[in-house]
Amino acid sequence: MSEIRKDIISGRYVILASNRISRPNDYNLAPPKCPFCPGNERETPPAILEIRKNGKWHIRVVPNKFPALLTGEKKPVLKRDGIHLKMPGKGVHEVVIETPKHDAQMYDMTDGEIHEVFKVYQERAKAISSKSHIKYLMIFKNRGRHAGASLVHPHSQIIGMPMLPVRVVNELNGAREYYDAHLSCAFCDIVREESGRQKRVIAENKHFIAIEPYAARFSFETWILPKRHEGRFEFFPETKIKYIAPVLKEALRKLDYSLNKADFNLLFHTLPPGEKREDFFHWHIEIMPKISYMAGFEWGTGFYINTVSPEKAAWILNNGSRAPGI
Amino acid sequence: MSEIRKDIISGRYVILASNRISRPNDYNLAPPKCPFCPGNERETPPAILEIRKNGKWHIRVVPNKFPALLTGEKKPVLKRDGIHLKMPGKGVHEVVIETPKHDAQMYDMTDGEIHEVFKVYQERAKAISSKSHIKYLMIFKNRGRHAGASLVHPHSQIIGMPMLPVRVVNELNGAREYYDAHLSCAFCDIVREESGRQKRVIAENKHFIAIEPYAARFSFETWILPKRHEGRFEFFPETKIKYIAPVLKEALRKLDYSLNKADFNLLFHTLPPGEKREDFFHWHIEIMPKISYMAGFEWGTGFYINTVSPEKAAWILNNGSRAPGI
Repeated sequence: MSEIRKDIISGRYVILASNRISRPNDYNLAPPKCPFCPGNERETPPAILEIRKNGKWHIRVVPNKFPALLTGEKKPVLKRDGIHLKMPGKGVHEVVIETPKHDAQMYDMTDGEIHEVFKVYQERAKAISSKSHIKYLMIFKNRGRHAGASLVHPHSQIIGMPMLPVRVVNELNGAREYYDAHLSCAFCDIVREESGRQKRVIAENKHFIAIEPYAARFSFETWILPKRHEGRFEFFPETKIKYIAPVLKEALRKLDYSLNKADFNLLFHTLPPGEKREDFFHWHIEIMPKISYMAGFEWGTGFYINTVSPEKAAWILNNGSRAPGI
Repeated sequence: MSEIRKDIISGRYVILASNRISRPNDYNLAPPKCPFCPGNERETPPAILEIRKNGKWHIRVVPNKFPALLTGEKKPVLKRDGIHLKMPGKGVHEVVIETPKHDAQMYDMTDGEIHEVFKVYQERAKAISSKSHIKYLMIFKNRGRHAGASLVHPHSQIIGMPMLPVRVVNELNGAREYYDAHLSCAFCDIVREESGRQKRVIAENKHFIAIEPYAARFSFETWILPKRHEGRFEFFPETKIKYIAPVLKEALRKLDYSLNKADFNLLFHTLPPGEKREDFFHWHIEIMPKISYMAGFEWGTGFYINTVSPEKAAWILNNGSRAPGI
């Protein structure tokens, strides 16, 4: 069962997905039993896409066996339930198995292998966002139990959902207002500022920059931005997307060293399929390491307390030091 | 050092508080060493307020030794920092030590003792929100490490901040729109609906109701609402506030049994001091048990996935069952 409910006060949505409670509990499921390892292809639903070389797959996209949103082609409609609002939980939920290697980290992969994974993300993102009932699309990766992962084998997920979530609406509104006030994309301005100041940069090349953002919510929060303006990740040109691999690998390697392999979430922000304007928003990646717990104050206000400034975090990462308390 | 930075895109604030990194790390600090236990009063800054009986304190309010916001009486002003925005981290951060008993839970306290704690919250909330530079006030309690607590001794915190946080603005806007569309307070409507349906109620008396909210973000999220409309917690009449103790105790006792004492955050939502209208908002308490980790999808979208419906959660709590996986 999957049902979407809308909070009548804040407008936020919640997915009630009771089937997800039966997800595998054994995070450390080792190779002979891991459902994402070669040889266990029957443990997942049939593949949507496989990238094969010499007769073997090296990237595999499958429907999530325990989907948050069930597959459906029709746009679900909000209905009243007493004073409340709900609709069927329809959408898309896919898993990208990034490599056949059970224990690989992204920085262990070659630039070419990472480029292949990004091409697969783009291909699936285009296919999913072309469906008329999909209003927003999120590509994300959870590494480790504290980041919400239920399996260790390297994988990412793509969720296509039938509405725009509150936090996305906020980010889009803010970026649109910034553009209209400054006649400039806020993300382009951030790239220019950070690349110029070099106080919060942790990796950079011709086409990408990895920074500790100025108003980081979490210690060691990291963003990766393309230098060229483009609203949609899925339409970023292939000749440029391949430059992300070295920047992503350097950022993840530095984080893993300084934070002693702390769990993290990695998320893509891209324009919703239905958005007509492309001038005010710039796709990017946000990485959020899990080295402290969110407390009541943050939950209640959305006002975060961060004990390591982004300038200090960049210094620690760039100097191969360990984070305080790690 | 405490500095507030504002994200130029989303408008969210972050507090950079490097001093908080030196907070005690030893969560299980036992009685002879616990800074909140009687006899160790010198381990905290001097008390702001003490409720004494027979020559001994039984509730104590002290400034937070590691404040997120430093004390200051002037309204801090946003300044540009390159393209970014920042201001000094000024405000109020107090700790309420709820009892001299190191290991007590709220449900071990008498109704009278809880009533005293609530009167202290009200007194401090009135004093703090009367300061002209305080735009919002949050009373909250973190129980357990996963909820962000750094000490086990029962305590809560009050933060007064110099601006309205994004999430509060969203909730107020949503509640105002609901009122203007329905000419009725959304929270009053929720109280009426839930009390009538009895599908999501876990404790109730003449003046308070504890429910699993319809669009619960987290499994076993619990709200406690007064039945009488009142925008501000701190002005809720004493003759009625005393009725919260039995409802709060029953809710916490049920949660602790079904979730095997899972960590939780408990937060008060109340109108900001500067808000003129009181018709559209209704103070309440939100309790968020920490039984699963937030994953990338939730972080990126603010769109939550909950695997236990509020109806099922209420059934489990009311029938003395254990939560799935507990």
